[in-house]
Amino acid sequence: MAGVFDPAAPPGATIGILGGGQLGRMLALAAARLGFDVAILTPEDDSPAARVAARTLVADYQDAGALTELARCCSVVTYEFENVPAPAVERLTALGARVAPGASALETAQDRVKEKSFFEANGMPTVAFTPVTTPGDIVRGLRRLGAPALLKTRREGYDGKGQVWVEAAEEAEAAFATISGVPAILEARADFRRELSVIAARGRDGAIAAYPLTENRHEGGVLRRSTAPADASDQTRAQALTIARKTLERLDYIGVLGIELFELPDGALLVNEFAPRVHNSGHWTLDACEVDQFEQHIRAIAGWPLGPAEPFAAVEMRNLLGEDAGRWQELAAEPDARLWLYGKREVEPGRKMGHVNRLKPLPR
Amino acid sequence: MAGVFDPAAPPGATIGILGGGQLGRMLALAAARLGFDVAILTPEDDSPAARVAARTLVADYQDAGALTELARCCSVVTYEFENVPAPAVERLTALGARVAPGASALETAQDRVKEKSFFEANGMPTVAFTPVTTPGDIVRGLRRLGAPALLKTRREGYDGKGQVWVEAAEEAEAAFATISGVPAILEARADFRRELSVIAARGRDGAIAAYPLTENRHEGGVLRRSTAPADASDQTRAQALTIARKTLERLDYIGVLGIELFELPDGALLVNEFAPRVHNSGHWTLDACEVDQFEQHIRAIAGWPLGPAEPFAAVEMRNLLGEDAGRWQELAAEPDARLWLYGKREVEPGRKMGHVNRLKPLPR
Repeated sequence: MAGVFDPAAPPGATIGILGGGQLGRMLALAAARLGFDVAILTPEDDSPAARVAARTLVADYQDAGALTELARCCSVVTYEFENVPAPAVERLTALGARVAPGASALETAQDRVKEKSFFEANGMPTVAFTPVTTPGDIVRGLRRLGAPALLKTRREGYDGKGQVWVEAAEEAEAAFATISGVPAILEARADFRRELSVIAARGRDGAIAAYPLTENRHEGGVLRRSTAPADASDQTRAQALTIARKTLERLDYIGVLGIELFELPDGALLVNEFAPRVHNSGHWTLDACEVDQFEQHIRAIAGWPLGPAEPFAAVEMRNLLGEDAGRWQELAAEPDARLWLYGKREVEPGRKMGHVNRLKPLPR
Repeated sequence: MAGVFDPAAPPGATIGILGGGQLGRMLALAAARLGFDVAILTPEDDSPAARVAARTLVADYQDAGALTELARCCSVVTYEFENVPAPAVERLTALGARVAPGASALETAQDRVKEKSFFEANGMPTVAFTPVTTPGDIVRGLRRLGAPALLKTRREGYDGKGQVWVEAAEEAEAAFATISGVPAILEARADFRRELSVIAARGRDGAIAAYPLTENRHEGGVLRRSTAPADASDQTRAQALTIARKTLERLDYIGVLGIELFELPDGALLVNEFAPRVHNSGHWTLDACEVDQFEQHIRAIAGWPLGPAEPFAAVEMRNLLGEDAGRWQELAAEPDARLWLYGKREVEPGRKMGHVNRLKPLPR
């Protein structure tokens, strides 16, 4: 059914979302603005996204009945996290559903070796890396990549989970045990100055829109703060745009993606990884762009024209983790702070409960 | 239960909305942003608001079971239209629910004679008027108010429904029959230059925030276009602000209201009417203010601090009536046009299907 010449999904059509978290919630809100209905598939009862969606199928992502129903009722199905099981997407496609972003983006993003190989093969530099299936691979890798190096599971893992630094060859066995001996990747340490990201979209018509570079600060593997537009040289910005464009085009990507970058001391960029979805570091667009990353994603997957990606304000976005969200009253009283809360029932340490965008005039 | 010293409704609390139309939908979207759940009460199956709400009670507005459930689950209940039956609000209040805006605002807004008397009694000029219960009242009224004069039902009626111009005494009987002989009001014709409106909010703490004046153009009794901020003299703007402040304070109003104004050739304002709810002429705030009228209303009724009401852009808002919404593809492609579609299933001539905000830089 999919194809460039298909008509756009009209208002009133249903958009399916795999996943019921905050990204699904903000996608659903954006879809509603444009007159769409949203159907959520999530194994979670009472999820943040379900509470703003026209309908919710509470079932496993691979539940045959739920996938059949989703394929039946949706003009297009998307996902809010990159670890959606590949068989679910395959089944949806087999049932005639349009899934965006497509299978090749998902497959590439789900395997860190494939992902980095994709970037290297397309002339986008990443940190040096080597695949790992035995402790011996780690020992050999350390010789080539230098120590310390970062051992990560090839699949799954997010927010710093499933990864461990290896300082020396003697630690290889223990490090491999830490990640339960699953297939892995060993990455050289990048001597970077700061972390940046680029959020970009590609429409069904091949048009591309990229938001300005964002500077990100992580703590304990979790994004704490983003500032945008990041102050960066013309050359750095141009390189980021090239990386975004190449990634979108080579993956024949439809929708919004987030690409995490390392900026080296000379301003050159290494690609760290990409997420085939709306991205936490793009939440600033919600209050500083007329078309934010969520509406942009909905436009792209529905076959609508992309919107402009220029900001009208500068933003510092901070994630509200765990008890941070308890400060809602104080944050709501700040005149230039725009508050987003995700409706999560349980507060847990480090859990993303919301975020706050603090706005400033754009630098001249 | 209500009172100034009650704590604010925390994120995760449920906000009840009577009515399932587009205003309820946009209120629900704003509430979700702040982490609230929304419960809709509407007699309509598959309503625009229900499709973005955590739960929906499909029942008559006076259904005892539905009202009991709403009172039980909601921290505060509001409404999206001013003709909500007074007994429903009374019952909710009797059940211990907080309803905002309160009963006195609703009572005043529901009766055009009470409404105009309220404005006059508080030093806010309106068009001259007289209550009508017989054709003879119309004849006497025409002598005092001049012809033509506008006969309107005292209650119900919106978008120009339930009203008729009376040109001469001979038409009194027929005009009264046109409105089925219900209690009515006869209003003098205002010789105004243009229609303006002011959208303003009052919080539980008594704080007031008013958006800049909006200029409105109606056709056939229905709003077609709003432009904001309206170009107006300091004096006109000050008078509008005074009218908003007095109205909010004298009604002990909590929430957002819209006041329709006539600007006379000398810049002085007459009050036409007010709506105790978010208002069509405030839809421009959705894309030109960091806190739009919908979030502002949710903040007010939830006992949160009001947000700023300064725009960062100038807007021309056009309602998409009936088949207008069929132009969604063209509108979505305009870079400075922000599109809102309400998810209504049936297109009917003149039905409000959505609106479009066209943005321009603020005049300097």
